Amino acid sequence: MSTTSYAGGGRAARYAGEGRIELSAQPATAPGPGQVQIRVAYCGICGTDLHILHGHMDHRVSAPQAIGHEMSGTVEAVGDGVTAVAAGDPVTVMPLDWCGDCPACRAGHGHICHNLDFVGIETTGAMQELWTVPESIVVPLPEGVSLRHAALVEPLAVAAHDVRRSRLVAGETALVIGGGPIGQLIALVARQTGARVILAEPNAVRRAFAAAHGATTVDPIAEDLAAVVQELTDGAGADVVFEVAGIAATALDATAHARTRGRVVIVAIHPQPVPIDLHRMFWRELELIGARVYEREDFERAIDLIASGAIPADELITETVPLAETQAAFAALEDARALKVLIDVQN
Amino acid sequence: MSTTSYAGGGRAARYAGEGRIELSAQPATAPGPGQVQIRVAYCGICGTDLHILHGHMDHRVSAPQAIGHEMSGTVEAVGDGVTAVAAGDPVTVMPLDWCGDCPACRAGHGHICHNLDFVGIETTGAMQELWTVPESIVVPLPEGVSLRHAALVEPLAVAAHDVRRSRLVAGETALVIGGGPIGQLIALVARQTGARVILAEPNAVRRAFAAAHGATTVDPIAEDLAAVVQELTDGAGADVVFEVAGIAATALDATAHARTRGRVVIVAIHPQPVPIDLHRMFWRELELIGARVYEREDFERAIDLIASGAIPADELITETVPLAETQAAFAALEDARALKVLIDVQN
Repeated sequence: MSTTSYAGGGRAARYAGEGRIELSAQPATAPGPGQVQIRVAYCGICGTDLHILHGHMDHRVSAPQAIGHEMSGTVEAVGDGVTAVAAGDPVTVMPLDWCGDCPACRAGHGHICHNLDFVGIETTGAMQELWTVPESIVVPLPEGVSLRHAALVEPLAVAAHDVRRSRLVAGETALVIGGGPIGQLIALVARQTGARVILAEPNAVRRAFAAAHGATTVDPIAEDLAAVVQELTDGAGADVVFEVAGIAATALDATAHARTRGRVVIVAIHPQPVPIDLHRMFWRELELIGARVYEREDFERAIDLIASGAIPADELITETVPLAETQAAFAALEDARALKVLIDVQN
Repeated sequence: MSTTSYAGGGRAARYAGEGRIELSAQPATAPGPGQVQIRVAYCGICGTDLHILHGHMDHRVSAPQAIGHEMSGTVEAVGDGVTAVAAGDPVTVMPLDWCGDCPACRAGHGHICHNLDFVGIETTGAMQELWTVPESIVVPLPEGVSLRHAALVEPLAVAAHDVRRSRLVAGETALVIGGGPIGQLIALVARQTGARVILAEPNAVRRAFAAAHGATTVDPIAEDLAAVVQELTDGAGADVVFEVAGIAATALDATAHARTRGRVVIVAIHPQPVPIDLHRMFWRELELIGARVYEREDFERAIDLIASGAIPADELITETVPLAETQAAFAALEDARALKVLIDVQN
């Protein structure tokens, strides 16, 4: 899809080159045919946005550009032919724009299209008052859902996808290695799936959060994680291991913690090849599973979990700042105590 | 199960320490309760047997010991309580002896039991005239099957298991990296499954064998394997990749050849951790699958394939030598032109 399907308007916080956010304002144009104009309410900051701010993704972003893709809002206006939503509807956006014609799309895996545009990276994003996107990527929210909570739908859909890819079922044990925002969300979705959760994380504040929400926590620096997993599983190992730390050593260890025929999901991004214990994979017939973004059903599950109150959204949102303070909001995210920082785009 | 369930008799070829096979003869005792005495007809030599001969597995083998586990034969006598077979029946053996009590066994994966004894390694094997084993591991063969061909059932079951673990279906494309005996058998089972097969192998004789049996072959030294796979799959990549070469470079490359959501099966043994492209696994949502030995249903499929003539058994058996020439048979296997060398145990 062409990036001309995307436009913005009103006040915006724009990435303006390495390390800088600039505030700007521009007039909004009416949505074209098949387009939906959204009045953005909240926009979360993702680890990817942090990479953009640091200039690591300048090959994909056209500065100055509003970024952001973890959002909620209300439909402001719709263009000709739009039927899925109408003005006033609460909505979020599944920020994936696929080509429809590559081998992945033809096989039904458009979410990992070979030519995927990630909306808010390759296109203008949600850190602006008015955001126009194609109808196809707009996802309706239930009436009455908190728009503040709904800004968590996108990262929660990542976790729902990771858990679905793992084939985790009730009664199984999931080990989550890494307790950052995505690790915590995976732990919460795994608990909601009926699994027992062990979360390994060196940061005490993050361990406390996980423990308060049903996980058995382990400090992998101070404790012997392998021994704890063995003890808690009667020597079997975890049914599923989620590698969310993104460290070569944890990727290598992940297979050691899995039971015979267990599944290891690679959630973290490892830019370089890392050593994997293929002998262990062979010996125990393990599966190593790659998981990336989400599909529509993961978005629907995330919306259900948010709308039903099954996820402690208020506790996950550690800070909410007005649009004018976006630069400070990015800085707050560098603090390991922060789980999710939201930008209140209307204030 | 105790190794006292295993015994031998008659002429035998025994591993007698690093590099040496000795011929011996001993009287046979009658099978005890629950035991089956088999008159061994043929016994194939496996790559593992070659490792034993070279002294690499002395921690598991009690020299002098008859080895061998790829066998066929006829029931000579049965002990009290045996009902599955009777004297005169053609049989083979599924050489796995599990404990029944470890986490893997309790989860139904006895074939990869944590305390697995491999029959013919941890116990006396089939390179002897009379071989007594517990009834539970004896697998009946159909009447009229060639016992010479049936000595291929065990390695063919390995291939059937690898293909089943890959979830390969008709119409898909399988890339087999490595054209030794197991790679060739995987290619044959994949063809019988209705898949298109691409086999990568530097040895011209092995390529010719695969090409004669329906595979598209590639010399990965002289040709650009990645380009060939891309061209043959319209840029999508292979649905399934079997890593059978056991080389770190081929394990790293395996993920590059797989399509989005493709599966990579680790068949070869990699004793040390090797670098794996986890970013590619994430980006394309690949699965890396460990596969080890076989289950009963793989044995049944292998028997069906042999009995129906779907597998070119006569061509796979490149040499058959009498028991007295077992040492020479091992030497013949070092020749890369050999696919499967059988010992005719009755001659």
